[in-house]
Amino acid sequence: MPTASHLYREIHEQPTVLRRLLDLEQPNIRRLVQTIRQRDVDYVLIAARGTSDNAGRYANYLFGALNGLPVALAAPSLYTVYQQPPRLRNALVLGISQSGKSPDIVSVLADAQRQGALTAAITNFEESDLANRADFVIPLHAGEERSIAATKTYTAELMALALLGANLSDDPQRLNALAEIPDAVGRVLEVEPAVAALAQRYRYMQACVVIGRGYNYASAFELALKLKELTYTIAEPYSSADFLHGPLALIEDGFPVIVLAPSGIMLPEMQAFIDVLVQREAEPIVISDDAATLQRGRVQIPLLASVPEWLSPITAIVPGQIFAMHLARARDYDPDHPRGLRKVTETR
Amino acid sequence: MPTASHLYREIHEQPTVLRRLLDLEQPNIRRLVQTIRQRDVDYVLIAARGTSDNAGRYANYLFGALNGLPVALAAPSLYTVYQQPPRLRNALVLGISQSGKSPDIVSVLADAQRQGALTAAITNFEESDLANRADFVIPLHAGEERSIAATKTYTAELMALALLGANLSDDPQRLNALAEIPDAVGRVLEVEPAVAALAQRYRYMQACVVIGRGYNYASAFELALKLKELTYTIAEPYSSADFLHGPLALIEDGFPVIVLAPSGIMLPEMQAFIDVLVQREAEPIVISDDAATLQRGRVQIPLLASVPEWLSPITAIVPGQIFAMHLARARDYDPDHPRGLRKVTETR
Repeated sequence: MPTASHLYREIHEQPTVLRRLLDLEQPNIRRLVQTIRQRDVDYVLIAARGTSDNAGRYANYLFGALNGLPVALAAPSLYTVYQQPPRLRNALVLGISQSGKSPDIVSVLADAQRQGALTAAITNFEESDLANRADFVIPLHAGEERSIAATKTYTAELMALALLGANLSDDPQRLNALAEIPDAVGRVLEVEPAVAALAQRYRYMQACVVIGRGYNYASAFELALKLKELTYTIAEPYSSADFLHGPLALIEDGFPVIVLAPSGIMLPEMQAFIDVLVQREAEPIVISDDAATLQRGRVQIPLLASVPEWLSPITAIVPGQIFAMHLARARDYDPDHPRGLRKVTETR
Repeated sequence: MPTASHLYREIHEQPTVLRRLLDLEQPNIRRLVQTIRQRDVDYVLIAARGTSDNAGRYANYLFGALNGLPVALAAPSLYTVYQQPPRLRNALVLGISQSGKSPDIVSVLADAQRQGALTAAITNFEESDLANRADFVIPLHAGEERSIAATKTYTAELMALALLGANLSDDPQRLNALAEIPDAVGRVLEVEPAVAALAQRYRYMQACVVIGRGYNYASAFELALKLKELTYTIAEPYSSADFLHGPLALIEDGFPVIVLAPSGIMLPEMQAFIDVLVQREAEPIVISDDAATLQRGRVQIPLLASVPEWLSPITAIVPGQIFAMHLARARDYDPDHPRGLRKVTETR
């Protein structure tokens, strides 16, 4: 029974986790925002791996669009293997890690501290190595995550980043929009019975592509990662623009392409992309809150809440988490213990 | 006959193209280096798509390790779709594009110029839109590239970046090492008959993973892209560290994993990774100049020249280009005109 799994419970805990984070972390994040304003921050360097790296991909668009801050994703091996860390002048260095334990991510923050850069950590463990290397810690308050595939800590990481971006932009409307997100995620979860039925269709799918662009570039990576971890499907993430630069050649009749297309400025782009897929006789599986966009696809997964685009990655990933869980079930895989994985991966 | 294809000719032109670039562009690059030193550059922002984006991934390690410069990869949709370009204070903004035509990449440079940032373009077309938006242009001198899949312009882009990094580090040993590369690429090309025979084994391979880390993270992405474009194989690139954070679950008996493992500081890391693959009964296909590393794999592709690790992406990609070409031939695909692609992809 999937309802008995940790994964099921953790997916359904998300509204509660997000509400708790919003309730508890505002004052802490405001202090970090004050320090960012005092220091001469030119750009943000993010160190993360796996699911947390996908949260970093969201930050790239979020801090760019809301705060005018360029984001660089750190190359941890420069610190650990090559031992040639770049000069971090005027950088905010942000480590994101559920466990706070991955040695390579800790190394980036340790070096940033040595260089006197401003450092912050987003983690579920306030007493972790990562937290100990950061000037500011934003705890996720997500409770223990027992499933190996991260779900609630991913959306909590997105929320922590959104809180930071919104407070740094000092726009009260944005803070109000954030307060609506936990309930919106609750509504999105109601798609579960429909997605459980739909997952049957993909029992023997061996490979697929997952497409998102802009804010939801991160969602494409995270959904592809869940499909790999939970269902062993070869799922490759792409921005619609990058996909047209070469990988489009992969498409043949019936090739499954999951398209994340929540409402927003990017929507016409995604609609045009779905039309290209239809023209080439692929199988577009569309996740959207927009009825006209859903209708363009071969298969529809309705997103049961509309939120501002900059927050849509927090809602848009949820049907994908549910899909991956039910597809794992359809294949008789253990949703909590994917083969070959452990909860904490210690890479250097 | 593959020898009659543009792709074959362009792959084999690489030593000549690289030598020409080295001969012609030193003075131009030295001028750019002087300007970088005069301006207060904190970091490099790179705008690129497809193959050129993979060259950007190389720059991330190159400029980090040789020059202490952090690299951010631009999110073009912030400029074109969201129209919220980040502030580019103290940035060198570098556009990389074979054609110099992709509107989204041109937009990033146009905005950087408006903001007064230092801009440079690496392109095969000196009179392109991209070149017109740049303070400095580094032409590739690669001659027309007629195959849709880029090969000689990719290694030329890597060489242009290596020239920039080496000159900026002001280390004469590095400049000497660069001068050896065209001949090294010539030697590497001699592996062709062995690779042509080997490609037969993979006639019915539907999917694979390509692994590289550090400098050769770029090589993993570029080889995966060639396999997608030319052979329609679902080929997913990963750093060995990221692969352990989740995607490792994909591995089952006989799963093909191409590992790029040229000599250097990263080699023990790659050897350990190959051992994990062997333990899990995958099929590691190893590309290396190191005999002991080759022997660890199930299948060996010898890299017939040893070069310093920071230059190894220029040689290490070549057997992969040859492999993708011969696999396309084994499948009766047109090497010059992959289905669904055009040479210039104009994304916004």
